Amino acid sequence: MIHRAKYTARGYELDSYGHVNNAVYLNYFEQARWELFRDLKMLDLIYRSGLFLVVVDVHIRYQREIKLFDEIEVATRPKRVDPYLIFEQKMVNLSTGLSVSRATIKTVLVDQQRMPQDIPETLKELY
Amino acid sequence: MIHRAKYTARGYELDSYGHVNNAVYLNYFEQARWELFRDLKMLDLIYRSGLFLVVVDVHIRYQREIKLFDEIEVATRPKRVDPYLIFEQKMVNLSTGLSVSRATIKTVLVDQQRMPQDIPETLKELY
Amino acid sequence: MIHRAKYTARGYELDSYGHVNNAVYLNYFEQARWELFRDLKMLDLIYRSGLFLVVVDVHIRYQREIKLFDEIEVATRPKRVDPYLIFEQKMVNLSTGLSVSRATIKTVLVDQQRMPQDIPETLKELY
Amino acid sequence: MIHRAKYTARGYELDSYGHVNNAVYLNYFEQARWELFRDLKMLDLIYRSGLFLVVVDVHIRYQREIKLFDEIEVATRPKRVDPYLIFEQKMVNLSTGLSVSRATIKTVLVDQQRMPQDIPETLKELY
Repeated sequence: MIHRAKYTARGYELDSYGHVNNAVYLNYFEQARWELFRDLKMLDLIYRSGLFLVVVDVHIRYQREIKLFDEIEVATRPKRVDPYLIFEQKMVNLSTGLSVSRATIKTVLVDQQRMPQDIPETLKELY
Repeated sequence: MIHRAKYTARGYELDSYGHVNNAVYLNYFEQARWELFRDLKMLDLIYRSGLFLVVVDVHIRYQREIKLFDEIEVATRPKRVDPYLIFEQKMVNLSTGLSVSRATIKTVLVDQQRMPQDIPETLKELY
Repeated sequence: MIHRAKYTARGYELDSYGHVNNAVYLNYFEQARWELFRDLKMLDLIYRSGLFLVVVDVHIRYQREIKLFDEIEVATRPKRVDPYLIFEQKMVNLSTGLSVSRATIKTVLVDQQRMPQDIPETLKELY
Repeated sequence: MIHRAKYTARGYELDSYGHVNNAVYLNYFEQARWELFRDLKMLDLIYRSGLFLVVVDVHIRYQREIKLFDEIEVATRPKRVDPYLIFEQKMVNLSTGLSVSRATIKTVLVDQQRMPQDIPETLKELY
């Protein structure tokens, strides 16, 4: 499955270069994953399991800058590579149609003691 | 009592005008209150009471801009005005000696149901 | 005139209390003002005038917490009180219909030397 | 050369899990690079060259969580791999002595038209 989410670059997200700061790209990618979990109704499942999804590895390529009010779309494709849940994410500028960034985010489910756990069957719709 | 804390303006805190964004001043003021509670060893007291300190009213005056690497000091004076805990805060640019901002932050302790509670005797050192 | 803008509370905007951090409210209010200027086609006017709109005073009342994925609407009403441009802003939670915050933001146009300037006639549509 | 910078985890940097949000690690790494340039007196050199240092690729490994008031140190080692300026960065929790994160940040100097430029001789102290 591929999940899609849209964002508009905000005034307070610009840095002293006048474009969206590079750490903000990570915010957009993170929010797209939250929305994927919401849309698949998996947020409650995870909460009730007592597990936490933690990010262990992030690789982002920055291809183009994002300017004030640019409309962007983040496409997210989750993939299971035990014990990891990996998210391949692409960000496109809808105004220009051009790719602005790509990311690979590796996550793992941990318990209260921060020990990695298997991905529950209830999350199998994800991949 | 007056509590003092120091910060350095960071590159990613600058906005497209090349100075520290106005929302970041609120971050500095908030962090100064966290450090005040830590230094008075009251963080644990609050955690254990099951209460939360929530901000109900913020008034900030912006007097001067803050630039990259400016050293600033936040002076915080807590004051009890039942049922509120009010923090008078001043921010000074240590490089120039000039005042850059003043804030009055009104907070209240609430329980799990978000109902305001009296300020416990154990926090009396605050004011 | 009253300008309206909508936002959705994001996962990375939550603080350790599990609700939207109080500094983030200031981000929403700021972005609503950026969108007002965009929608009135005044961003370019201001850029070309060589002036900057700076915030000199912020007063926010926090009435209710905002939680993950809450939909909020910010209503902004600009008003001229020479030499200030004042924005009265209200934030409503569209899920509950309840008011969550109110703000009064006082701004002034300054030139390159940070000296306050009169509000140009070209911005008169604002008020 | 290796440059070292210290930070303290702040209250507003915590997310709903109660630890420092993963995007904030990127802020710490970025600020360490700003301080490196300041300490080498290269910020002015870059400004005057009319060039911008832009991030093109970020790889971060998250090894441990960071909690409120943890003291961390970022060690930064710049390296020239034409046309890139690459920063190898490590983050250590000074309270525990343990490594919390590692990052490789690939940057390039671009001109006003966003075209990559050679690294000027004046920046040669960096590597």
